[in-house]
Amino acid sequence: MIKVGIVGGTGYTGVELLRLLAGHPLARVTAVTSRKEAGMPVAEMFPSLRGRVDVAFSTPEEAKLTECDVVFFATPHGVAMAQARELLDAGVKVIDLAADFRLKDPAEFQRWYAMEHSCTDLLAEAVYGLPEVNREAIKQARLIGMAGCYPTSVQLGLLPLLEGGKQLIDTQTLIADCKSGVSGAGRKAEVGTLFAEAGDNFKAYGVKGHRHSPEIEQGLSVIHGAPVKLTFVPHLTPMIRGIHSTIYARLTPEGRDTDFQALFEARYAGEAFVDVLPAGSHPETRSVRGSNTARIAVHRPGNGDLLVILVVEDNLVKGASGQAVQVMNLMFGLPEDAGLQVVPLLP
Amino acid sequence: MIKVGIVGGTGYTGVELLRLLAGHPLARVTAVTSRKEAGMPVAEMFPSLRGRVDVAFSTPEEAKLTECDVVFFATPHGVAMAQARELLDAGVKVIDLAADFRLKDPAEFQRWYAMEHSCTDLLAEAVYGLPEVNREAIKQARLIGMAGCYPTSVQLGLLPLLEGGKQLIDTQTLIADCKSGVSGAGRKAEVGTLFAEAGDNFKAYGVKGHRHSPEIEQGLSVIHGAPVKLTFVPHLTPMIRGIHSTIYARLTPEGRDTDFQALFEARYAGEAFVDVLPAGSHPETRSVRGSNTARIAVHRPGNGDLLVILVVEDNLVKGASGQAVQVMNLMFGLPEDAGLQVVPLLP
Amino acid sequence: MIKVGIVGGTGYTGVELLRLLAGHPLARVTAVTSRKEAGMPVAEMFPSLRGRVDVAFSTPEEAKLTECDVVFFATPHGVAMAQARELLDAGVKVIDLAADFRLKDPAEFQRWYAMEHSCTDLLAEAVYGLPEVNREAIKQARLIGMAGCYPTSVQLGLLPLLEGGKQLIDTQTLIADCKSGVSGAGRKAEVGTLFAEAGDNFKAYGVKGHRHSPEIEQGLSVIHGAPVKLTFVPHLTPMIRGIHSTIYARLTPEGRDTDFQALFEARYAGEAFVDVLPAGSHPETRSVRGSNTARIAVHRPGNGDLLVILVVEDNLVKGASGQAVQVMNLMFGLPEDAGLQVVPLLP
Amino acid sequence: MIKVGIVGGTGYTGVELLRLLAGHPLARVTAVTSRKEAGMPVAEMFPSLRGRVDVAFSTPEEAKLTECDVVFFATPHGVAMAQARELLDAGVKVIDLAADFRLKDPAEFQRWYAMEHSCTDLLAEAVYGLPEVNREAIKQARLIGMAGCYPTSVQLGLLPLLEGGKQLIDTQTLIADCKSGVSGAGRKAEVGTLFAEAGDNFKAYGVKGHRHSPEIEQGLSVIHGAPVKLTFVPHLTPMIRGIHSTIYARLTPEGRDTDFQALFEARYAGEAFVDVLPAGSHPETRSVRGSNTARIAVHRPGNGDLLVILVVEDNLVKGASGQAVQVMNLMFGLPEDAGLQVVPLLP
Repeated sequence: MIKVGIVGGTGYTGVELLRLLAGHPLARVTAVTSRKEAGMPVAEMFPSLRGRVDVAFSTPEEAKLTECDVVFFATPHGVAMAQARELLDAGVKVIDLAADFRLKDPAEFQRWYAMEHSCTDLLAEAVYGLPEVNREAIKQARLIGMAGCYPTSVQLGLLPLLEGGKQLIDTQTLIADCKSGVSGAGRKAEVGTLFAEAGDNFKAYGVKGHRHSPEIEQGLSVIHGAPVKLTFVPHLTPMIRGIHSTIYARLTPEGRDTDFQALFEARYAGEAFVDVLPAGSHPETRSVRGSNTARIAVHRPGNGDLLVILVVEDNLVKGASGQAVQVMNLMFGLPEDAGLQVVPLLP
Repeated sequence: MIKVGIVGGTGYTGVELLRLLAGHPLARVTAVTSRKEAGMPVAEMFPSLRGRVDVAFSTPEEAKLTECDVVFFATPHGVAMAQARELLDAGVKVIDLAADFRLKDPAEFQRWYAMEHSCTDLLAEAVYGLPEVNREAIKQARLIGMAGCYPTSVQLGLLPLLEGGKQLIDTQTLIADCKSGVSGAGRKAEVGTLFAEAGDNFKAYGVKGHRHSPEIEQGLSVIHGAPVKLTFVPHLTPMIRGIHSTIYARLTPEGRDTDFQALFEARYAGEAFVDVLPAGSHPETRSVRGSNTARIAVHRPGNGDLLVILVVEDNLVKGASGQAVQVMNLMFGLPEDAGLQVVPLLP
Repeated sequence: MIKVGIVGGTGYTGVELLRLLAGHPLARVTAVTSRKEAGMPVAEMFPSLRGRVDVAFSTPEEAKLTECDVVFFATPHGVAMAQARELLDAGVKVIDLAADFRLKDPAEFQRWYAMEHSCTDLLAEAVYGLPEVNREAIKQARLIGMAGCYPTSVQLGLLPLLEGGKQLIDTQTLIADCKSGVSGAGRKAEVGTLFAEAGDNFKAYGVKGHRHSPEIEQGLSVIHGAPVKLTFVPHLTPMIRGIHSTIYARLTPEGRDTDFQALFEARYAGEAFVDVLPAGSHPETRSVRGSNTARIAVHRPGNGDLLVILVVEDNLVKGASGQAVQVMNLMFGLPEDAGLQVVPLLP
Repeated sequence: MIKVGIVGGTGYTGVELLRLLAGHPLARVTAVTSRKEAGMPVAEMFPSLRGRVDVAFSTPEEAKLTECDVVFFATPHGVAMAQARELLDAGVKVIDLAADFRLKDPAEFQRWYAMEHSCTDLLAEAVYGLPEVNREAIKQARLIGMAGCYPTSVQLGLLPLLEGGKQLIDTQTLIADCKSGVSGAGRKAEVGTLFAEAGDNFKAYGVKGHRHSPEIEQGLSVIHGAPVKLTFVPHLTPMIRGIHSTIYARLTPEGRDTDFQALFEARYAGEAFVDVLPAGSHPETRSVRGSNTARIAVHRPGNGDLLVILVVEDNLVKGASGQAVQVMNLMFGLPEDAGLQVVPLLP
């Protein structure tokens, strides 16, 4: 039984970890920290967990995280960076759901997150948590920077087209028009994500530049083995969970004869959590609600030069906590889908 | 042209006043205060007002509210109390949308709002802003404490049954089961009213006791001329605007032969903003969205002893800012519906 | 492995059965009928089931339902009535999620469902599917009429107060003010439940009389051992899943000294799927989303004579398909919670 | 006073015409036809119109549409085509909100709408109803084919870049990623747009090809004076009203030095219903809810070669009925904004 600690259990990725781990046959949450809520049973804050999770929040001091096998950071950016070394030194594996270990270039990190990186050696060691891309490295890692929610969906949508230096699409003019449910903004008291503000409303945001943009380009460039350029436009849509990414890629002359449906199906044939839909499909976000699956459809309107790839995921599961559990399973040699067999909730 | 000042224009009742007054033919907003946003054009915070409202927020000092004909307080509780006297002394009429001048008993006010009342003489003078109940007093008033959102709907639903000491229903066992849209909680950064918390969710709150409870009982008792007791249970429903009150009243033996449909229709025949639906109807909140109308239906299931009264209103209009404009119209001898002829937005 | 057949797999209770049974360790769906969709894989209609359910719809003829151990009817009213006898004769247990076997009086059935009852002998034999009330009878039954969604919540909310002829509350003036998500109306093409009609809107319906009213009164009367009268007012609320019942009961003089919190906690101490919240709580529908749990809170505002009981359930799970699986488990001697350990999805 | 007839008043564009015309100072609805609902007061079907619209539905025969000054067709495709000639012959102006008179090429019409065009001479005469593009032609017209909802937003977003043969952007690789509220699908009983299907869900549709695609390309080509190619991807988003179009255009070398903010502001300076937001803005659909205004923001991320244009409109107003009233105003020499001064409803 893997002993799991969670730092920051009061946000959406925290409660989602608790939900998934409550059903995990081989792991058990032994500590959840929250300085502010120390002493309160987790199920008092989240009644959905009553009868399923009996741990209480504790201070970091009481939590004895160094006795865990693995610690998840479901915290704001900057927290994992400050605490990772002590845990690693104690032999604890660390999985950060925030951005501290995503961007490989500390200057880029500082530019987008407005803080200096405090442990660049660990940053260099950290493995990017996107199993479909680097499963083997994850298995060997002791420190993971989990892929972000938007970046997961965009990279899964472009992976079969870019990996191994393939020249099927123009890698300098990619566009990802992404739509996220409001839970993506987190469980923070803010006016902009109030029900009466975000409800019955649709808008783009961060068009000038968004933190996930450098992460996506970094990831795609690693996959491709050469620099990739992508314009990323996120939108806020009035639903709770779900990301829908609509990705546009221009075909190269070499790419035009490709059977893209077959390419995607072949690439993901062995993946438990990526589902390529039949040709002509339109994936719905609700078809993955609560589950760790991403669903993908590939379109080529009018058999022209533009590929339109549609990707859906649950931003809190495959886009965050579910993928983090998937990564944990890999790190500990467990079945990759342990605790992740939840059937999506529809309707 | 009535010169209007608004204290606290950044909340929902404030922006709703601005929306309605932008279409008012006989009133003009000359000042909107917000210490925090001073200098910012109102339409920058609320782009829906671009091209329709060209005033900017100003500090209370710059606002010269004493030069207005009337000042609305769309503020948290306690603000109007502190500023009303100076305005009244300068000959400005004051309309408070908060609770400072609702409860006639200062001790009750202190009990429910956790602050001492600082001007009990003004409280004694203040008129309760519910035109269907006390239109004449409003016309003569210089200080109004506007009826709350829930209390408006419940009082309109019971007015024909209680006024003038009528003995049609048991006045000691009334129940109001009320459901409000989330905008009723205001435009405050809070976790509980986030889209991802309040969306796709339904719950009761304040069952132990809610501030609107004493206001409702006070209002009904005044209407009835004798003490009335009511159990009030508010609920939060995942929509932006709208209140639906389901009111339960036991008939007295005297009441049993009454034609309640006729009673309600007769009572509200001359009221511009109360619409009694045909027998058997179920009013929908969206049928009044954005408008100052309340719609009412009266049911007597199985022709038994229990009356079920259904009332809908837009909590921000008839439940707040629209009714405040209606009151202003009365105070200044304008047509009662000036600026209030908005047709509800459906769908 | 229990072999399960489902008649009518294209509606919401059908797909919910499929979701729950996909995770059931001791049962397997071997047939799902739909004359209209025969031949189509179930997962094509409901992509959420891709990779989890590989059965296809078949015609009733091909389905060989008589080879199943149990058949669920997730059909419109009237279908189970016509097919139950043949299955029972073949030794198949039958669980009807519609209303064919709920009302014990055939005249009442005809009055509310506008069709004659075609097998009154089976009706007499049928057991009402509400485990907390009649678990032992269910274990022995071969034909079950599942409790309706509203009736489940109201009966669970009143059970501790009424059973065994208790005289704690006035049994002739009960009120249930119930609010349901839109999925309760089923997956039928209708204007009234379109997103643009039911969204951002709230209304009561069926105040004159609703089919669940006689079912609730029948159930409560059985529980109490004497006639009980209740006024039932259902409302439609803009969410997908969930029922919130607010129940009002007048205390009798005998009832006034009762510790209701203790009463409820004691009554449900051994029940896996009824959770009594701490005193002062307000259950949220989302706290049970996707799960078979009902949560209950008991209030007595101002320590007065009126009890306010709040009950939440997922209308498609505890209110329909989950409870049906619970019943199946009982009928076959399986652990009562087999396949029902889904953790609620929050947010 | 303009006498207005409406054919097909039971759908969303019909009720929206009624809402707007109820507040129009110079027009009056004298007939609303619906064969199915003949005799029913319009306000009985749409209680939001109670007290504001007192006309009843009538059969086409009784309606005496030939006595109107103008007739709007708020009908399914094909109806206006069949009835326009008789009205025009009687001197009545005709405004079709459906697609009968949008596509200039009858073969294209037949391809996308699966019916033959029955009056190609009228089609040739018909003027496209998009005032910002062809105001003068509209003033002279007696038959208008109103622009579709998506096409309005996309054309307004690209008009300043394309008109007069400008060579600022690559006209062969345009992309419009559009998101619509569910009311865009109309008030038809269909499973796909039920609340429980479309709520809390996001999906693309019609990626293979959508009827608005040829309309957009035709319109842009007319504007540009040369063929324009655009990939159009519509999405369904869980809100009632609103379209958000995110448009991607590659700059040409000539285009790179353009001040696009200034270009858009200058182009729309005189337009009452197009509002160019300050640089860096993200328009929200709710900022135009219920109003005839479109709001536009122009972005050039990283000062690169890709222009991102964001356009919002209310699909039922500027995208349909409001624009139709605007067109009527032009045809009859009324002030262009008569009846269209509704302030958007926010929140």
